[in-house]
Amino acid sequence: MPTESTESHRIADVRITPVAFRDPPLLNTVGVHEPYALRAIVEIVTDSGLSGLGETYGDAGHLARLRAAAAQLTGVDVWHGNEIERRIHTALATDTSKAGHGMSGMVTGSSTVHRVLSPFEVACLDIRGKAVGRPVSDLLGGAVRDRVDYSAYLFYKWAGHPGAEPDDWGPALDPAQLVAQARRIVDDYGFSAIKLKGGVVAPEEEVAAILALREEFPGHPLRIDPNGAWSVETSIRVGKELDGVIEYLEDPTSGIDGMAAVAREVAMPLATNMCVVAFDHLKPAVKADAVQVVLSDHHFWGGLDRSRTLGNICDTFGLGLSMHSNSHLGISLAAMTHLAAATPNLTYACDTHWPWKDADDDVIVPGALTFEGGAVAVPTGPGLGVELDRDALARLHEQYLACGITERDDTGYLRRFEPDFDPTAPRW
Amino acid sequence: MPTESTESHRIADVRITPVAFRDPPLLNTVGVHEPYALRAIVEIVTDSGLSGLGETYGDAGHLARLRAAAAQLTGVDVWHGNEIERRIHTALATDTSKAGHGMSGMVTGSSTVHRVLSPFEVACLDIRGKAVGRPVSDLLGGAVRDRVDYSAYLFYKWAGHPGAEPDDWGPALDPAQLVAQARRIVDDYGFSAIKLKGGVVAPEEEVAAILALREEFPGHPLRIDPNGAWSVETSIRVGKELDGVIEYLEDPTSGIDGMAAVAREVAMPLATNMCVVAFDHLKPAVKADAVQVVLSDHHFWGGLDRSRTLGNICDTFGLGLSMHSNSHLGISLAAMTHLAAATPNLTYACDTHWPWKDADDDVIVPGALTFEGGAVAVPTGPGLGVELDRDALARLHEQYLACGITERDDTGYLRRFEPDFDPTAPRW
Repeated sequence: MPTESTESHRIADVRITPVAFRDPPLLNTVGVHEPYALRAIVEIVTDSGLSGLGETYGDAGHLARLRAAAAQLTGVDVWHGNEIERRIHTALATDTSKAGHGMSGMVTGSSTVHRVLSPFEVACLDIRGKAVGRPVSDLLGGAVRDRVDYSAYLFYKWAGHPGAEPDDWGPALDPAQLVAQARRIVDDYGFSAIKLKGGVVAPEEEVAAILALREEFPGHPLRIDPNGAWSVETSIRVGKELDGVIEYLEDPTSGIDGMAAVAREVAMPLATNMCVVAFDHLKPAVKADAVQVVLSDHHFWGGLDRSRTLGNICDTFGLGLSMHSNSHLGISLAAMTHLAAATPNLTYACDTHWPWKDADDDVIVPGALTFEGGAVAVPTGPGLGVELDRDALARLHEQYLACGITERDDTGYLRRFEPDFDPTAPRW
Repeated sequence: MPTESTESHRIADVRITPVAFRDPPLLNTVGVHEPYALRAIVEIVTDSGLSGLGETYGDAGHLARLRAAAAQLTGVDVWHGNEIERRIHTALATDTSKAGHGMSGMVTGSSTVHRVLSPFEVACLDIRGKAVGRPVSDLLGGAVRDRVDYSAYLFYKWAGHPGAEPDDWGPALDPAQLVAQARRIVDDYGFSAIKLKGGVVAPEEEVAAILALREEFPGHPLRIDPNGAWSVETSIRVGKELDGVIEYLEDPTSGIDGMAAVAREVAMPLATNMCVVAFDHLKPAVKADAVQVVLSDHHFWGGLDRSRTLGNICDTFGLGLSMHSNSHLGISLAAMTHLAAATPNLTYACDTHWPWKDADDDVIVPGALTFEGGAVAVPTGPGLGVELDRDALARLHEQYLACGITERDDTGYLRRFEPDFDPTAPRW
């Protein structure tokens, strides 16, 4: 008989540390990435001496909510997810602000409770895994794959941040430069699928970029995501032009009704991480047949267990499942990898911003997560399988304090250089 | 730091034991309960020496599938639910028979894989709970209530099985006798909600019975379940007659289209455990607004974790959630109680056939589960919190061998005494 531990693991301490890491000038339809991306690192310590990690957005409004939530969690057992969610719901009952969602105006409809719950839930899973000596994937039903495929995430970008030297990547403002960017990422990481962040230049130019990528990478599934920048009419036109070229068309236009109108006219699946970003959106989306693929994201779907539920809902309602990414560090990559490994119907290569992060800008001890053939091997040690590097955490926290950024604001940053920039959708 | 156990818990042995326990002549729309009800007891033993329990239907066809599935499970870790389901899917890939679902023609559309998976999943949860020293409810997100409410389940019944002495309950064939039955059950168990199994006599008589129950129990929520015996027209008529009297109307008519037609015309919620009994049924039911309450049942929804998912789907799609019961023993009562305790939106009192079972007809050591005020206290010990009584198991297995029943057949049993009985729906 194995040792049975009836020891409780109650939350004794929660530490929330905002950090910043360097980010290139990646363009999207609402603006451009600032020189630093923000994250918050959540550490939970139990009365039994175990600790667990979570990672989430670092915007000031979100940090305030994380702290309000953390103050209510003392004494809760890390296995009691229902109670943790109930306490966070209570802690945020009087919060009605919409700011601080960490997504710079692009994903505004997610559940505040689930966005705040997520890093605590991940940290509790990390602790549970350590307590039972198993990887987090085992607590989610067990890995069905030992490697998780990610995709090459291409961006239009400036040569460098204004006023600074051009960065190592250089500019990507036309098809040839995007193909070169793709070539470098694919060669470096081995990705077998490619996604282009669109909604930046005129749709015809973005179609040309996709066709150039198709020529250079004839076997790679392609995707384009203009973040709702197009009208229904433009979306349908582009959808017809790219018929047979892309595996899915992501958020061409805004809202469930608009997506449904596009879906009725184009052949490829429509994917979303904008019009279905909370459980409340699923019923109207299903009723309208608005989307065919949902990009899950445990950071706004309430953590890994609830993201599993989203996966099951997609399976139940005949929806495909992919995974969305923001700029993130290694704790999130570990969480995404465990979740994807344990989700049988997650058959698309997941998004990740990983290649855009400097390798030495992270808070975890290096070596736990590496890309090979476009995939990350699922950690097999207890919990998430990553360890906090306290010196690195302190360094990235110093960067946070020094960079002066407290809310992600892609639009405001772009307007410093293009004062008339207007992100109002539809832009085309 | 607590002891971390990295020991694996791989399935080393699976034992499946069919059992039978005495059952009164309870009437339903397809026939009458035979003198013995069948169940199968599943025991899983791991290479680490832990064991876990599950309980399911005992029909011959189902037993054959359980054995085929069990033969494929050796060596799987009890945490790897995804792999267990995959193996069962493979084991049953060539099984196309529809027989042996354990429900005597009333619930025929459930998933064969999920029906077979269920007892193995419950047994694995029992083992996981023992391995980590926690109740199964903790593995499902944690109990949100420490007691689970059940309901009084009334049946039309004969005085006794033909050829035998009248049983202790006596006949229940008119409103007065049903009120007396309800009074006894409510007084004995403290139930605060009452369900009548209908579809047995003419709808007007069943309406009269409900109205008599309303008079005797003015504060108890009431339900009636004719198992799809009525036409759409009859269902609408009865629904209008019982407006304001019952909390929900369960399966008045057959099929999603029929239920949707009734739902458009009656005021109370429609509930089902007949037209939505598998994940595949949820999308058409949601699209048609066919039902407002789903009665979950871990025995055909694939176990406790998948039933949690069903609960989350109901929450997501604005459906109420209740719980269905068949004739069952204590292992199932424990599993139902853990699941209900950890499901926040399970707000209706659950069904149970428990009062119809002789107290000494069970396979678990007595005392673990008791009713007080209509509720069962959620076990707090490791796993399910129930222990197999091997002498009792042997005795109920002997009853199985001796009783000669190998497939539940309510219709065939009734026809022995009423050769012209025709269960074809709609009967009214």
